[in-house]
Formats: sequence, structure tokens, C-alpha cells
Amino acid sequence: MTATADRPLVLDPDRLFPADPGVRSVARRLHEAVRDLPIISPHGHVPPQWLAEDVPFGDPTSLLISPDHYIYRLLHAQGVALEDLGVGGGSLDEAQSRRAFRLLAEHWPAFRGTPSRFWMESELGDVFGIGQRLHVDTADAIYDQIAERLASPDYRPRALMDRFDIEVLATTDDPADDLRHHAALRDDPAFTRRVVPTFRPDRYLEPGRADFPQLVADLGRAAGVDTGTYRGYIAALEERRRAFKALGAVSSDHSHADVVTLALDEAEAARIYASAVRGEVNEAEATAFRRHMLVEMARMATEDGLVMTLHPAVHRNHHTATFERFGADTGHDIPYATEFTRGLQPLLDRFGTAPGFHLVLFTLDETVYSREIAPLAGFYPSVYVGAPWWFLDAPEAIRRFRGAATETAGFYRTSGFIDDTRAFMSIPARHDMSRRLDSAYLAQLVAEHRLDEEEALETAVDIVTTIPRKTFKL
Amino acid sequence: MTATADRPLVLDPDRLFPADPGVRSVARRLHEAVRDLPIISPHGHVPPQWLAEDVPFGDPTSLLISPDHYIYRLLHAQGVALEDLGVGGGSLDEAQSRRAFRLLAEHWPAFRGTPSRFWMESELGDVFGIGQRLHVDTADAIYDQIAERLASPDYRPRALMDRFDIEVLATTDDPADDLRHHAALRDDPAFTRRVVPTFRPDRYLEPGRADFPQLVADLGRAAGVDTGTYRGYIAALEERRRAFKALGAVSSDHSHADVVTLALDEAEAARIYASAVRGEVNEAEATAFRRHMLVEMARMATEDGLVMTLHPAVHRNHHTATFERFGADTGHDIPYATEFTRGLQPLLDRFGTAPGFHLVLFTLDETVYSREIAPLAGFYPSVYVGAPWWFLDAPEAIRRFRGAATETAGFYRTSGFIDDTRAFMSIPARHDMSRRLDSAYLAQLVAEHRLDEEEALETAVDIVTTIPRKTFKL
Amino acid sequence: MTATADRPLVLDPDRLFPADPGVRSVARRLHEAVRDLPIISPHGHVPPQWLAEDVPFGDPTSLLISPDHYIYRLLHAQGVALEDLGVGGGSLDEAQSRRAFRLLAEHWPAFRGTPSRFWMESELGDVFGIGQRLHVDTADAIYDQIAERLASPDYRPRALMDRFDIEVLATTDDPADDLRHHAALRDDPAFTRRVVPTFRPDRYLEPGRADFPQLVADLGRAAGVDTGTYRGYIAALEERRRAFKALGAVSSDHSHADVVTLALDEAEAARIYASAVRGEVNEAEATAFRRHMLVEMARMATEDGLVMTLHPAVHRNHHTATFERFGADTGHDIPYATEFTRGLQPLLDRFGTAPGFHLVLFTLDETVYSREIAPLAGFYPSVYVGAPWWFLDAPEAIRRFRGAATETAGFYRTSGFIDDTRAFMSIPARHDMSRRLDSAYLAQLVAEHRLDEEEALETAVDIVTTIPRKTFKL
Repeated sequence: MTATADRPLVLDPDRLFPADPGVRSVARRLHEAVRDLPIISPHGHVPPQWLAEDVPFGDPTSLLISPDHYIYRLLHAQGVALEDLGVGGGSLDEAQSRRAFRLLAEHWPAFRGTPSRFWMESELGDVFGIGQRLHVDTADAIYDQIAERLASPDYRPRALMDRFDIEVLATTDDPADDLRHHAALRDDPAFTRRVVPTFRPDRYLEPGRADFPQLVADLGRAAGVDTGTYRGYIAALEERRRAFKALGAVSSDHSHADVVTLALDEAEAARIYASAVRGEVNEAEATAFRRHMLVEMARMATEDGLVMTLHPAVHRNHHTATFERFGADTGHDIPYATEFTRGLQPLLDRFGTAPGFHLVLFTLDETVYSREIAPLAGFYPSVYVGAPWWFLDAPEAIRRFRGAATETAGFYRTSGFIDDTRAFMSIPARHDMSRRLDSAYLAQLVAEHRLDEEEALETAVDIVTTIPRKTFKL
Repeated sequence: MTATADRPLVLDPDRLFPADPGVRSVARRLHEAVRDLPIISPHGHVPPQWLAEDVPFGDPTSLLISPDHYIYRLLHAQGVALEDLGVGGGSLDEAQSRRAFRLLAEHWPAFRGTPSRFWMESELGDVFGIGQRLHVDTADAIYDQIAERLASPDYRPRALMDRFDIEVLATTDDPADDLRHHAALRDDPAFTRRVVPTFRPDRYLEPGRADFPQLVADLGRAAGVDTGTYRGYIAALEERRRAFKALGAVSSDHSHADVVTLALDEAEAARIYASAVRGEVNEAEATAFRRHMLVEMARMATEDGLVMTLHPAVHRNHHTATFERFGADTGHDIPYATEFTRGLQPLLDRFGTAPGFHLVLFTLDETVYSREIAPLAGFYPSVYVGAPWWFLDAPEAIRRFRGAATETAGFYRTSGFIDDTRAFMSIPARHDMSRRLDSAYLAQLVAEHRLDEEEALETAVDIVTTIPRKTFKL
Repeated sequence: MTATADRPLVLDPDRLFPADPGVRSVARRLHEAVRDLPIISPHGHVPPQWLAEDVPFGDPTSLLISPDHYIYRLLHAQGVALEDLGVGGGSLDEAQSRRAFRLLAEHWPAFRGTPSRFWMESELGDVFGIGQRLHVDTADAIYDQIAERLASPDYRPRALMDRFDIEVLATTDDPADDLRHHAALRDDPAFTRRVVPTFRPDRYLEPGRADFPQLVADLGRAAGVDTGTYRGYIAALEERRRAFKALGAVSSDHSHADVVTLALDEAEAARIYASAVRGEVNEAEATAFRRHMLVEMARMATEDGLVMTLHPAVHRNHHTATFERFGADTGHDIPYATEFTRGLQPLLDRFGTAPGFHLVLFTLDETVYSREIAPLAGFYPSVYVGAPWWFLDAPEAIRRFRGAATETAGFYRTSGFIDDTRAFMSIPARHDMSRRLDSAYLAQLVAEHRLDEEEALETAVDIVTTIPRKTFKL
């Protein structure tokens, strides 16, 4: 294995392009045209505080490993203990942090063929200027180089946002959040980029949760509205959406067990809400209410213009012992099959052609692209095919996405790429991967004479400019 | 964009062929051998009246846009109003028709990567001899050229059927239809091609419909049989199948919510039927009866020899307001998941090995190709894997189909291509797309030494000759 | 067709490699490195008696057709009667056997594009040294050549096991089996290869079977434990697992209608068991018990270390008449959709991170690779993504498998190839197909600069050495 350690890390300019020399040269030209365009990131999980306070990043492990579930879950599968990686907020001292980085290097072959490998190498090479491959023999040296860079002002969040040329960055925020970091960014004349919040109300729409009474009380407090009644609850949600919008929000984001929708009459909704506030709701009522609230969210969207994004059907916290020890979002959220056609019909029947309504459908069940989502987006002016998301945000999955969605919905009913990440350093690598793959896909269409190169070029540019701007109203 | 308008429309002879030069040259040779073979179209929706009366086609919009849901649904998704496109029978005057054609041209980029783009360009270039690309700057000129061609006798249906070399064309017909156009064609010595009806009894098998009593009364009238009892109803269906067969029908076609089958005993079937005729059937009974009737249709098929085709699992008329204004089949029929293995077991257990029985299984849920349909067709002599159909009748979907079905069922348990279209002008383009894709697929097998070129050639020819003839008993 | 018969059978050294010359040359180099490595076959259906008694094989038909459901089911679909092929134990005389072989040759075009075609040609060329293509004109000559070879000692099972360089061969065995052939192999100093049993308890875990009381009595007898009570039944299973392990078993193998798991408390399990032994269990109880027993099997695995393999969701004996005449496993087991995420949660919640527990998940529903199995294997140290299995063990299905699983689980959470076959002669061809396809897949990653060639080489070797050894504890 020493051989690997000895060879330099080189990021080939042709990576992810088709092997055929003719197609590759088309892909190169297309990518050339989009490579340096600004990044639009309309959905992700970077904490706004990082930018508001321009907090320097910590050590390499707490930056690159501890918060990245793509990385630590596969290490866990290889037998590495999560506590050794600083997962779940457990802080590591210098020696532990260095050891965690070495564990990653030791198990680096496990990442062959994964997007994490691509992103990490891009980060090492492009962001940190590392010239060595990750390997157990180079781990310490790379760790030191990253640590050194992180100490420099050039590696602070704001400087990187400029360097990465991120035009817009959307964060994900709780409806009861005071959004003070967003307000600070808005009020800071020194900050000229655009960071916007996203309204993520999931838990406030789930009356089956034990903490629902507390949650809606908090929501009411944040909104300055009494949420003791259903009407107050609705008013509080509307008020918080307004507050988010005032700070630049362009979308609300939703993830529930399914996307079944159901319009209850107000009396029934109010009755269930009243039970829920008393902690007396049963499962069927809770489910009906949540499904009703998805329709309500769509109704609000037609009024306040926030884009609505849905990404359902994940079994959260699959392994109880890991959840209890390390908390939520620690690598064991596992997808399952889902259904859009019949589930969304009540919502789309009401609002599918409502002027200005935008509904972006993400999925982890890729069977629905050709069967359900593309056909819906190919008819309803409101529906957009969401870019591949988590577990599918990788080269071959993205090719399958384009192959499944394009023939029915074309390019202009798709959403543009979202990175959906908390791993700030990986944002350029993720967008670059997407640009390379779309260039490759378009080049293939050119090679098969399904598109001419000029059209492909225009489409490639649209995919990273007009398409995300239109979808997310930016 | 003027650049696009200025470049000529050129249909590259290599379109849809693999990019690799070696594989491409094999694909070319295979396609060369099948390119000019007659078209067999065993399932589609061309009105027989067009050929019986050799009706001249109207203006370009009413020919190419208003009846083509592939075209107008994607325009609708782009925000174009269906009424502006003449959808649902609303007739457009000359100015409106021209404007609709311009709307298509304006939104033409939305079709990049779709099969509509391929078909339309093939029609413009090959059928109408247009040398310009569709673009907002060329729309009027192209409109005029098409209009001019349509005025010529060379563009009448019969002349085109000859020019397209359509050997057999199957239409889709209601069991109560008097089939007078088919009779006229049979009796017309000047008409030497073959146009045959297809028995499509869906609504007569759904006792849950409000109009079921009226429908079975009409059926009885058409058959000259009293449908007041279950036995009469069965006899009427058998009689109409005979009448269809007498006019050349080779198949019956079925599309219901699912393909679950169920054999009721006659007393129970008769009991439900009696309730249904009184309008008193409940949903469970209606579903059971419909499932039973699929088995009955198979039973009749084993007796009269009509091939049975199934294409289930579409949510019809998804958007109520559009349905109410524009009617059925207006672009918002959306597929959902379906199941063949267990659903068809009762039917196949009875008739799966019955001599002469042919059952062609189409799907919009492509997950079932490798999992269910190919395994069924790989055992039962009666089962054929239906060619990709609507939403899947596009280059990459067809490649996925071959990739999913061939390894289990080979080529000789598949059905041959069906165009399933009402867009008469697009028939050659659709069959040519299919021939190109099958040539490309076979060329790939040759390149990988899974097949030698001589075998590939024989298979390519079989796919457009012996295979559809055997499947559909032509 | 005579032309085909005249051309020699040549197995191209580049078969299944990518067409692009650059990628192909990488694939060649990778394959070169793994081509001659020993075969590890950790799951299959070769009868141990063949090796224990070194039984000479019979005629070509009873060797290559009668026991191979891949072959005879597609012949059946082409209209050939199963009895003419010697299926289901009906023995054929010399003339019938020769005629069956000719039937295969006649219908050989039906196998174009299938893996059977690849395997059969590899067997003919590589194992039997046949220089002619299978064709109706060559069938008799080929039959004679095979028959002649089979008469030679070089074609006895042990000689072939050496020639094929099969390092480990796992058979599949009934828990009540006395394993005398395995004991004989262990005790035979002349036999130096490794043949191990596999514990396959399916029917002993299904209390809904009519013969369950008899089965558990047999099990008790084999174990020397009274299975009159639930505790005795559990003890008997544990005892038989021990006996299997003592003879080299490394895994237990399980195939039920689904992989839903459920942990009953012991009292409830005992109650259902008691009912079942009296033949009084109802369907819900039987299902609950079977789901509970999957958890029990996992529990035992954490104690005795046997690897647990699951391959669910097949509708067995789909066609009753064929089952009644020819018995089980006669070509009409048809897959259906299944679910792993929620179904396995109770089992994984208990044992997913248990030290040493290995759970290999196979599927015939390929939609679950990217959605469920790879995410599970990408977190749980116990879970391995099983190689494509039956109906999916073909070139394009295997490519789809790698494309769907690798990006989430990498290579090192997959199981290595299993051949799952009773067709002893086809074992080298199957492993060679797999090695070619993995070389091709890795070469593609190299061509796209996702992996460098040295890493690809190391991975290719791991896939056939360390990976199956680790997964199956060999």
C-alpha cells in the first residue's frame, strides 16, 4: 500500500466525464462553460451562525468527520465506534481528533466508488491544496496541513463563501427560531452575499409527538399568537412564515413518513388539534391531521409565495441504541418505498395549477422518478422534479435520475441541484460533481444526435442559473 | 437564439446509435437491414374513419398539437393554457391555430431530451420535408409549409399509409361500436392495406360505474342479446368479440386499476351482476366482479383466439378541474405502482398454459420488468413482455426495458413494438426510434461478444417481422 | 441458419468488457489479475453426494438440461413440454435424451441475450472443449462429444473440482439431514478440497405448514432432543446448527415470503408452538411465529457465529398443474416486491451491532438495492449487500447492482459473488462472468477518474478473495 501513499493526489480535469473520446470532448466544452458560474444553494444545512459570526473552523476531524454522516456511517459499518469519531457532539481532544483522522485514512478503501471519496479528494486538493493521497501513511501530514490552513483567515466561512462564489445559501431553520443570525447578516453592511432561512415545520405538524403541546406553545410564543386553538395555531404558522420571508426565506421544507394529503374540514381539524394540545390524540387522528397540514402548507404557499419542498419516506433513527447514545441524524435514517401519485392528488387537485405555487418533489425511492414524479411535473405547472437527494446524490444515481426524468419532464421541469449539506467545505465539490454529470449527460445526447451542442450548452448554463432561480424564486 | 433558427434541420443518420465508433458501425448495419421493412402496428388509436373516408387532415395545430397529449401536457406544465392549444375539442380559427403553433415553438426548449422532440423533428424532416428547425422565428414559415403539404392529395391518410408502408394498423374500438368504418374498409376494393379493430371493453367490465346499467343495455343492443342477466351479458360480450374478429380483430385490450384476478363462481358473479344492473353494487363487489371478468376475458380468449393485452395502473384524470373542462385523456393520467405476480396467478393458473392463449403485459411501473413480467414470460408459453408504453416509450426507457427483460426472457418472449398512438404522422418516427434502439442494443451485445453479428441481424429482423406477427397472430 | 452451424464456437477473450478501447484495456488488465484465482463458492446447491462418492455424471441432457431451471423454463415458454426435457425426475432413455438436447439446439435463439447462453457456451468451449456452436445441425455431434468426455475420469466431480480450482464449495442441507456425505468427505484423506454444509431451516420455521408436526418430530429425532415443547424445539435447532458447524458449515440460509421480523415473548411463542404441534395454528399466528423465528435465528447466529443469509419474496410454484406433475423448483417461482427497512428493524435493533454477527441480504426486487439494502449495509457492521441472485445474476443486472449499491455501501460492504447453482459444470463460467463484470465496472471507474488503476486492481482481487472470506468467515 505504500505505493498509494507515494503517488500524488491529482484531480483529473476529466473526472466523471464519459470515457468515449468524442463524447468526452463535448462534455469538456459544456463543463468549461459552467465550471466557474456562481453557486446557487437553495437547500442545505449550514448553520447561519458560522457566517453571521464568521467563526473559524476547528480541527480537521470536527470539520470533516464528526458532522458528516456520509463519512462516519460507513466507518461505523466497517466497525469503527462512533464515539471515536466525535459523533453526536462528544468533543475530542487533539490526540483523539488526530486518531479519528487516522481511522478515516485506514478505512479509506471502504469509500472507493462512493461520492464521499470524490468530495473529500476535491476538498483536499481544491480547497486545502493538499498534494498527497489520503492513506494511513499520510494521514498525520494531511491533518497538519489542514489544521494549518484552518488557522488562516482565508479559511474562515465568509472568505470561503467568497472564494467558493456562493451566490445564495439557504439554511434550514426551526419555525420558533428567532433567526437572529439571519437578522445579523441582513444588518451587516460588510456581508454582501445572500444567506436565507428555510421554514422547516415538520415537528409542529405532527400532533402524535409527545412534545406537541410544548412545541405549539413555543411556536405561539415565537409568533406572538395564542396557539390554544386551531385558528391560533394556523395564524402562528402563517406569522412565522411571514417572519421567515421577511428575512429572505424562499421556501418551506417538509419531511414526513409519506406524502399522503387529505383536506379535513375546519371543524374536524380543530377538534383533533384540541385533543392534541391536551395530549389525547390517537394515531389515526394524528396522521390525518399531519396530512391535512400538508394541504394547509400548500394553501399558505399559494398565499405567501414560499416554494414548498417535500422529501418523504425515511425511517428515522433505525437503531435505537445509537439514537439513545448519539442522538438523531447519526447515520441510521433508512429510506423505504413511497407513493406520490395518489397521495398528492388531494393537494394537487386544489393547488396544482394555482398561479405561483411551486412544489418540489424529492425522493429516496428512485422508482418514482419515471413512474410518478416526472409525469406529475410534466403536467402540473407547480410541480418540479427535485434533484437527487442523499443516498442518490452520487454519479450513477444522478445519471439514473436524468435518464428517468428527462424523457418525460425535460430539463426545464427539474429543480436544479441542491447540495443539502452541512459540510460547508464540500459545497463546491458537490456542485462541481453535479455540473460534470449534467455536462456528461448532455454530451451523450449530443453524441446521439438528440440535441445539438449549442442547445446542450444553453441547457447546461440554464441548469445552474435560470432553472434554480425560477424553481426557488431567487 | 437566432443562430438556432438559422441552422438547418438535419436528421443525422446515426441518431440514437451508441457513441463508440465500433459499436456504432454495427448498429448502422443492423438498422440498415430493418429500416425499410414494413410497419406492423398491432395497437394504437388512429380513428378508422380517417382511412375509411380518407379524410384530409386539417391545419398543423389540429394535426400535431391539439390531439397529442405528449405535446400539450408539457406545454401546460410550462404555463400554457390548454384552451390556447385546442385541447378537448375546442376548435381554433386560423389565427388561433397559428398562435398555438408559435407557442409550441416558443417553448420548444422544454422538449429537449424528450421523445416528442425526436418524433416531431422526424415528422418535420421526413414526412413534411421541412428544412428548418422549430423556433419562434421559423414557426410561421413551418406552419405554412405544413399547411401547404396537407392540402395535397399525397398527405391524405391512405396515401400516407402507403408511403409509411404500414402493413397492419390496429385501431381501438368500443364493444358497442358498429364498426362501420372497418366494414367499409373491408368492402372497399381500392383499399389494399390491413386495418383491424381492437376489442376494448374496459367500461363494460366495471359495474361500479354509475352508467353501467346503460352501458350493458347498449352492449346488449349491439350484440342483439338481452343483457338483463349475467348469462346474457357474457353472451353479449362473446358475440361482440366474434363480430370484432369477423372484421379482422386480433386482440382485446384492457386497462384497469390493477391486474388482480379472481374467479368467482357463476352464482356469485350473477348475483353481483344483478345488483349492478339495478345500480346497487358496492365497491368491494364491483372490484371483485371486474377482477372476475378479467379471468372471463382470458377464458373467452382461449376459445376465440383473440390476444389479450393488459396495461394497468394509471390514475386517470388526476386534476378534476382539467377533466371537467377538457374531458378525459387530456394529459393528467398519472401512473402508480402495480403488481403482476400474485395478481395474475389465478388467471395464469387456469389459462397460463392453454394452447393458443396469448397475454401481453404492458406496464408503466418499470420495476416489474425484471422482477415479475420477464420471469412470468420466461415460464408461461402464453405470456409476452409488452414493449415499453407511454412515459416509457423513449430512448433511455426502451434501453432500460431491454436491459431488464432480455436477460430473463430473451428477445423471443417480447411483443415487438407498439406505437399506441393517435398521432398518425408520428407512426414512422416511433417505429424508426424503436428500430434504432433495438439495433443499438443488439450492437452492444455484439460488441461485448454476447452475440455475433449474424445472430444480431437475424434478431433485429425478427423483432419487426416474425415477433409481432407471432405475438399478435398476424 | 447453416451459416451459424458452420462457424466455429470461439470464446472471445474480451467478452463482457466495455466496448470503448481505452476502458476495455483497463478491464483486461484487471481481469487478468483475478481470472485464475481459486473459486470461493459460499452458497449453492450441488449435492454433496456427487463429491463424496465422486459419482460420474450421466448423459448430456440429465447433466445440462433436466436439472437447470434457467434452461428448461425458457424452453417451456417456447412451447416445449417439460416431460420431454426430463424435468422433475422423469428419466429419459438415450433416444429421448438426445431428442431433448436437439430441442434445446432448435430453440437456442430464444436464449440470445440471456446468461444461460453465456454459461452454456463457456461450458461447451472451456469445460468440454467443443469447437462447434450449438445449432440444430450440430446438436447430435455435440451431444456425442459431451457424452464421450463424461465417460472419462477427468470429468468426474472431484477431478473437475480440482480443475475448476474450487477452494470452498458450500452445499444447502436440511436441518434433519444426517450430513453423512459431509462426514464422509471430512473423513476421506484423499479429498483435500473444502465442501461445507449450509443450514437451511425454512420449513421448520413455518408452523402454518400441514406437515409441521411431522417436521419438528423429525428435527427432534435428528437432534436427539424432544421437540414437544417450544424450548425443546429451540434446543433442537441449536443442536443441529452445532452439528452443521462441526462439519464446517459457515452459514444458515433463509427464504420466506418476506423479511418482516418480530420478537414475541417466550410465553406467546411457546403458546403458538404448542398450537402448531397440535396442527391448530391460524395464519396470523403462523406468520407471527415465523417472523419471531427469524429473530431467533439471528440470536443463535450471534452465539454460534453462523452467517445468516436472507433471500425473500418469491411466489413458489406459481402454476399449480406444473407443480402437481413435476414438483417444486420447476421454473415457476416468480418474484414480487419486498421491503427490508421496516421489516428488519426489530432484528437489527437487537443484533445489528452485535459483535461477529453477519447478515447477508439478497433480493430479487432490485429496487431495494439503493433504497434499503445499501443504506442498511452502509451503517450496520453486521449487514452485507448480497450479490445479485437468480433472475438478476446476469451481466446487465449485475452492472445495475454495482451501480445501485456501490455509491452508498462501497465494495467492502458487499458479499462477493455466490453462484447459487446446482449446475456444477457452470460454476467456473458463472464466477468468470462475475469477475469480468466487476473488472469492467472497476475499469469504468478508472476511466472516469473515480479510482486509479492500482486501487481498482486491489479491489478486484479483494472481491474474489478477502471479501467473500470475511463475509462468510472462511
